[in-house]
Amino acid sequence: MSDETKNGTSRRGFLRQAALTGAGIVAGATTARASEPDPKITEVQEWATAFGDPVDAAPYGTPIRFESHVVRRNVEWLTESPVSSINFTPIHALEGTITPQGCAFERHHSGAIELSKQDYRLMINGLVEKPLVFTFEDLLRFPRTINTAFLECAANGGMEWGGAQLEGCQFTQGMIHNMEYTGVPLRLLLEEAGVKPEGKWIYAEGADASSNGRSIPIEKALDDVMVAFFANGEALRKEHGYPVRLVVPGWEGNMWIKWLRRIGVYDKAVESREETSKYTDLMPDGRARKWTWTMDTKSVITSPSPQAPIRHGKGPLVLTGLAWSGNGKIKRVDVSLDGGVNWQEARISGDIKSKALTRFHLDIDWDGSEMLLQSRAIDETGYVQPTKDALREIRGLNNVYHNNGIQTWWVKADGEVENVEVA
Amino acid sequence: MSDETKNGTSRRGFLRQAALTGAGIVAGATTARASEPDPKITEVQEWATAFGDPVDAAPYGTPIRFESHVVRRNVEWLTESPVSSINFTPIHALEGTITPQGCAFERHHSGAIELSKQDYRLMINGLVEKPLVFTFEDLLRFPRTINTAFLECAANGGMEWGGAQLEGCQFTQGMIHNMEYTGVPLRLLLEEAGVKPEGKWIYAEGADASSNGRSIPIEKALDDVMVAFFANGEALRKEHGYPVRLVVPGWEGNMWIKWLRRIGVYDKAVESREETSKYTDLMPDGRARKWTWTMDTKSVITSPSPQAPIRHGKGPLVLTGLAWSGNGKIKRVDVSLDGGVNWQEARISGDIKSKALTRFHLDIDWDGSEMLLQSRAIDETGYVQPTKDALREIRGLNNVYHNNGIQTWWVKADGEVENVEVA
Repeated sequence: MSDETKNGTSRRGFLRQAALTGAGIVAGATTARASEPDPKITEVQEWATAFGDPVDAAPYGTPIRFESHVVRRNVEWLTESPVSSINFTPIHALEGTITPQGCAFERHHSGAIELSKQDYRLMINGLVEKPLVFTFEDLLRFPRTINTAFLECAANGGMEWGGAQLEGCQFTQGMIHNMEYTGVPLRLLLEEAGVKPEGKWIYAEGADASSNGRSIPIEKALDDVMVAFFANGEALRKEHGYPVRLVVPGWEGNMWIKWLRRIGVYDKAVESREETSKYTDLMPDGRARKWTWTMDTKSVITSPSPQAPIRHGKGPLVLTGLAWSGNGKIKRVDVSLDGGVNWQEARISGDIKSKALTRFHLDIDWDGSEMLLQSRAIDETGYVQPTKDALREIRGLNNVYHNNGIQTWWVKADGEVENVEVA
Repeated sequence: MSDETKNGTSRRGFLRQAALTGAGIVAGATTARASEPDPKITEVQEWATAFGDPVDAAPYGTPIRFESHVVRRNVEWLTESPVSSINFTPIHALEGTITPQGCAFERHHSGAIELSKQDYRLMINGLVEKPLVFTFEDLLRFPRTINTAFLECAANGGMEWGGAQLEGCQFTQGMIHNMEYTGVPLRLLLEEAGVKPEGKWIYAEGADASSNGRSIPIEKALDDVMVAFFANGEALRKEHGYPVRLVVPGWEGNMWIKWLRRIGVYDKAVESREETSKYTDLMPDGRARKWTWTMDTKSVITSPSPQAPIRHGKGPLVLTGLAWSGNGKIKRVDVSLDGGVNWQEARISGDIKSKALTRFHLDIDWDGSEMLLQSRAIDETGYVQPTKDALREIRGLNNVYHNNGIQTWWVKADGEVENVEVA
């Protein structure tokens, strides 16, 4: 973090500059240079004259040392205790839609525990015909499904309620990841136990000290909730809940219980600590709105952004970012170069999956003048991502959670980028 | 490798047993146990009484120690030199469709080189209007696309030409991976250089000592070939060609040039070492068939399999595997429990993408008797995966490459699994 943001000062009210005319749409133009003698290609290089690493150098490989900056990072002034804290995904440096487990957002309430498959148990009890305890091998006998879904912390963008404070989308929108999960539909396990007619809620808790229990309505539990073992093709990592976590597509990340220990079935919500004192929306009148489970439609330009400035000067420039909706599929993403005055439709790249990260691109020809970059996502229900100010009008400034407002990046003439707001 | 397979002895001709009636379709049955007092869940466990790892424990995480067996492995008697060899994906232990870069099949011809973005250059020359040299930053200015594709080595399954030799699908079918790539369509770079009318082939080569050059017809080069920077959301790993590799969907892995250095445009194929003395199909008459680029439709049951035996005894059993086709999408996968006498349709899980790995599942109720498991993939063109013997009738036994024959696993009553062939 830069010094000026460490104390959380705000830069709200940055004025939209009328003269911002930094870029037009590019149609195929590029800067590829006519070939001149370049010894890096015309001369035989050192790496072409010797053997590289053998195939047994790394039975399980890690990123090359040149990418050592692409890692999860925390924010010191947000971290009270590292066992109950957050570590943000470096979305400014990623592309495509999948988030590798190794650099995917972590949040723990009492640290990431080490739990073996041999020691693992899952209990289903409460209002069921037949209380059950499953070993890990029991779970492996049930039919499996695959689903790609984003997980977003309810607090993602939370620091932005008070203004543009954090320099980089890793910190402003990086409490998110997107993985391909394989596991058993929770419905099948609940059917095995037999939910009694009066069972209207489940309460899911983890095996860690915090237990981090959350209530989920039975309709959602029987719909698309998954008891997952695999993420992006391999076992869940320790920090993502090995060996078993709950996947709750479209709903706030805190409900995706890690190291899943118990599913209790009840006639009403438990109203636990994590769903009353936390993860509620403190409104302007001092009352708190509870149970805002669905993560509303949102987007952010990941490059350029404060941690990914423009290094190559003017000319063709790729703008890229992510969009997502807890309500279904992304229908369209618009991008503004002038702080929301004019909008143009971005190109969606790759698949559009329901409740999963969607990648967009816009190719422009940058003339080197300043820009105020914004993106605005629209989902299949027609919902349009709002401005931060529109959210504040309704929700005030007390809130920490559920900020899906439009993000603005001020691109300066030298290519550096700053987190600002337009007024 | 077990001792009995180290020397490459064959077990061709294992007889199909008429009495194999090991399993029927399962309809919802499970073995979930009625809950009995189990101290692992009824007593407070050690991991619930202490803090786990803090969020800054691993800025870039790796698999938990309990999964240390899920790694790439080589086969000693296949490895002449580790810098010119293969390391197989542990597909027996993976699920879903994505292959993590860390355990994805590697094959090098002179080792994995370390090449920085600063040192990287890509030359396009030959029959073009304007020869070009691109830096890495130049490439970042071009419009990007996303595509998920499987890479399969032409030699995948090659040891099976001579019979069932290797114990485990990691070794028989593990020269494969499936990743989500982001990069620039090669077409855009070729258009920038301007291909002359007489330019009918490209020749792609790498920056490593082997250069591993391959010729590709211009039609394919202008179709779906990508100059990729990202795999599964992050930068390519060193062993996968950092910073730039070619992605050639559906075509043999050797053409996916890593550390891409040059694209030459020519009026005919170069007929390089790697496309004449290697990666050709030696036919029964001693002549070699060249340019079998497309990887034909194939499938394999990944679990149970020799490295993934049945540990939990009889009852509900999940059969799972992978299917793929270089010609497009998988349409259907059939599974046989009795060595190809009877077939039943498996369930496709997750997305079916063209030229990408597709996951299938079949849920059965295993009575504990022996099975001869087979899978048979059918692609959207109607092509049906053949038996190994059907391939041998046409192609003989001289060949090493392009074996897409049906794999058989002999499941014994104790749950152990062996690689066999039915006759």
